[in-house]
Amino acid sequence: MSQVIATYLIHDVKDLAKKAEGIALGLTVGSWTDLPLLEQEQLRKHKGTVVSIIPLEENERVNQYLGKKVHRALVKIAYPSVNFSADLPAILTTVFGKLSLDGEVKLIDLQFSAELKQAFPGPRYGIEGIREKLGVYDRPLVMSIFKGVIGRNLQYLSEQLKEQALGGVDLIKDDEILFENERTPFEKRIAVGKKVLQEVYEKTGQKTLYAVNLSGKTFELKEKAKRAVELGADILLFNVFAYGLDVLQGLREDKEIEIPIMAHPAVSGALTPSEFYGIASPLLLGKLLRLAGADFSLFPSPYGSVALDKNEAQSIADELTKEDEQLKRTFPVPSAGIHPGLVPLLVRDFGNDCVINAGGGVHGHPDGAVGGGKAFRAAVAAVLSGRSLQEAAKENEALKKAIALWGAHEVNV
Amino acid sequence: MSQVIATYLIHDVKDLAKKAEGIALGLTVGSWTDLPLLEQEQLRKHKGTVVSIIPLEENERVNQYLGKKVHRALVKIAYPSVNFSADLPAILTTVFGKLSLDGEVKLIDLQFSAELKQAFPGPRYGIEGIREKLGVYDRPLVMSIFKGVIGRNLQYLSEQLKEQALGGVDLIKDDEILFENERTPFEKRIAVGKKVLQEVYEKTGQKTLYAVNLSGKTFELKEKAKRAVELGADILLFNVFAYGLDVLQGLREDKEIEIPIMAHPAVSGALTPSEFYGIASPLLLGKLLRLAGADFSLFPSPYGSVALDKNEAQSIADELTKEDEQLKRTFPVPSAGIHPGLVPLLVRDFGNDCVINAGGGVHGHPDGAVGGGKAFRAAVAAVLSGRSLQEAAKENEALKKAIALWGAHEVNV
Repeated sequence: MSQVIATYLIHDVKDLAKKAEGIALGLTVGSWTDLPLLEQEQLRKHKGTVVSIIPLEENERVNQYLGKKVHRALVKIAYPSVNFSADLPAILTTVFGKLSLDGEVKLIDLQFSAELKQAFPGPRYGIEGIREKLGVYDRPLVMSIFKGVIGRNLQYLSEQLKEQALGGVDLIKDDEILFENERTPFEKRIAVGKKVLQEVYEKTGQKTLYAVNLSGKTFELKEKAKRAVELGADILLFNVFAYGLDVLQGLREDKEIEIPIMAHPAVSGALTPSEFYGIASPLLLGKLLRLAGADFSLFPSPYGSVALDKNEAQSIADELTKEDEQLKRTFPVPSAGIHPGLVPLLVRDFGNDCVINAGGGVHGHPDGAVGGGKAFRAAVAAVLSGRSLQEAAKENEALKKAIALWGAHEVNV
Repeated sequence: MSQVIATYLIHDVKDLAKKAEGIALGLTVGSWTDLPLLEQEQLRKHKGTVVSIIPLEENERVNQYLGKKVHRALVKIAYPSVNFSADLPAILTTVFGKLSLDGEVKLIDLQFSAELKQAFPGPRYGIEGIREKLGVYDRPLVMSIFKGVIGRNLQYLSEQLKEQALGGVDLIKDDEILFENERTPFEKRIAVGKKVLQEVYEKTGQKTLYAVNLSGKTFELKEKAKRAVELGADILLFNVFAYGLDVLQGLREDKEIEIPIMAHPAVSGALTPSEFYGIASPLLLGKLLRLAGADFSLFPSPYGSVALDKNEAQSIADELTKEDEQLKRTFPVPSAGIHPGLVPLLVRDFGNDCVINAGGGVHGHPDGAVGGGKAFRAAVAAVLSGRSLQEAAKENEALKKAIALWGAHEVNV
């Protein structure tokens, strides 16, 4: 049967089996045992079902914090697809609409039946498509971020863009807080960016794609994105969680918006970090972004000051990249706190199919963004050839300066 | 200066003055003290400013739970409007984009300068406009909700609708989990609803408005809403938080969608309840819904099992209804756990300008939805005339049965 199975982490003083049954009915047919048999027959295919309840150990720290003794369990409930239209707003409202308001309940996962999953596009390009665009097949990609661009003019931006590209990064993204503005308007950023990157390519053979921030009002985004495509934009950066997952899907599904989309996690921290409430990050930043069609998903790396737990970050990456017959794979972009000395850890923890993304770790290099990019590329080459960073640094000045400044986290494989 | 001032509740082991300064710069110009004076001059109007830091007492319970000793403070930071376009996605990304991922930070409030506020429409009708539609000026409105409609047919729905209207409720809303479906499609619900409510009106003089659930994909909503208007729909129910606040605003701003919008809080519990993370409910379900254009805002009442703290619920209502030269007022709809015996508390806590909304408290009446509606109307009349429910029940059979079943919470005013 076509359905979605939701997994919840529930903390409650009540009996959780009873609570689970209440959810399964309350979010579908409403009531059951008091219905006449004939009505039960008619409504059976609409009825939610408790699939499993896995009790967890009582947690004294949690009890103390909540000021009450609570049961804890992972509860799985199946919701028949016949109850909702095949879109994320309907699914989220069904499985976590009213329920999100009902005490300590966190949505951990959603399992979509194959039939239901067909309603979702997944990434248009995915990892393989992005690699084809770049002609880079055998290593993690390297990305850098514009820095301090608020209030600056196009000249400033294009110089920064050029420096970054000359360092050899594969991707450059706008600052997500750069919106439509007079000094560096969206369309001009695209045009100038294209020109600068073409010049670098002609000079060095280095191909770099620029992700421009698609912003503005929801119902104007499609026209704006189409204009970006006309102007030759490479990639759209998009603050999905300031809009809505279904807005991302709408952009992805528009046939005229045929460029990759990079999802930024801005505002998602309002939903994911609580132990008791919200939506788990592997579901939100992993599975749902992939279903809705992001080609890249940025999320906090486990290494920086704005950090995710390593298991959690890897679970996000796993949701983005695990094999799926119906969906292309999304590039994981563990971000924040990344410098060249962390590349061995990044490759160990996220493998080849990830994007190594840095801001300060590129711009803060003693030789500026050019040196930063070169250091990252040298670090990636060293790790892939099985050499230590220290060893590779002997032959690469940029890497040498980088690890003198930030250190090197070698991994013995 | 046009700006938005964000208030955050921050828990951090770090020095909070330093952290606040880091936020004010990091989310605007990036750096400051190391900039040349000329650049400081150029960027001054873009720079974020720490407005105030109000330290809060250390909280042992919080320290124990977090496993670290944290400082707590309410921090206000001003962000110049010149940095963002005047839309909620840009504002949320600026003030709580990256920052939402940065540890224990909750967004408590946003103060919009008058100039910035001009970019937001507020409710199209507001409390006064809704009252005019109904011709009811001097009492709280009464609303009831369809119950157990998943899998049912139009005949079932129209009978339920009729029963509810005959009880004398002013508003009837769809179940928020009723989406586009074969048995009770959107357009037919509107047409049948219109017919039934017209019949009741002709028979009894009771005017009742029906809020139909606007659902489906984001970029198809406007066409669907316009079709609803053509068919004569009264009100659109909308699961704002399964879509995005700016989607609500887009619907509100479309001149052809000239009917009221009722915002349902589904999924908002993923954002609001944590002490450490997310967005405070008076901001999300109060101020922002009003700015974006909701005519009604449903939120958990302080009385039911799915309950909000009373102060919090009243703060939401206050944000929806306080005087504002630029914005109409939004009807507060404290919901869940409401029965006729609670009307004295509702009027005490939310005043005349609220909607008294019930599901089980209408349908669960011994005489069914007709009795439930009548009991509510009798309770409202009693409270407004200064009589106790017990006294009024002597002359009203429906109210008598209701308080026999659910009790009466009298208030001595």
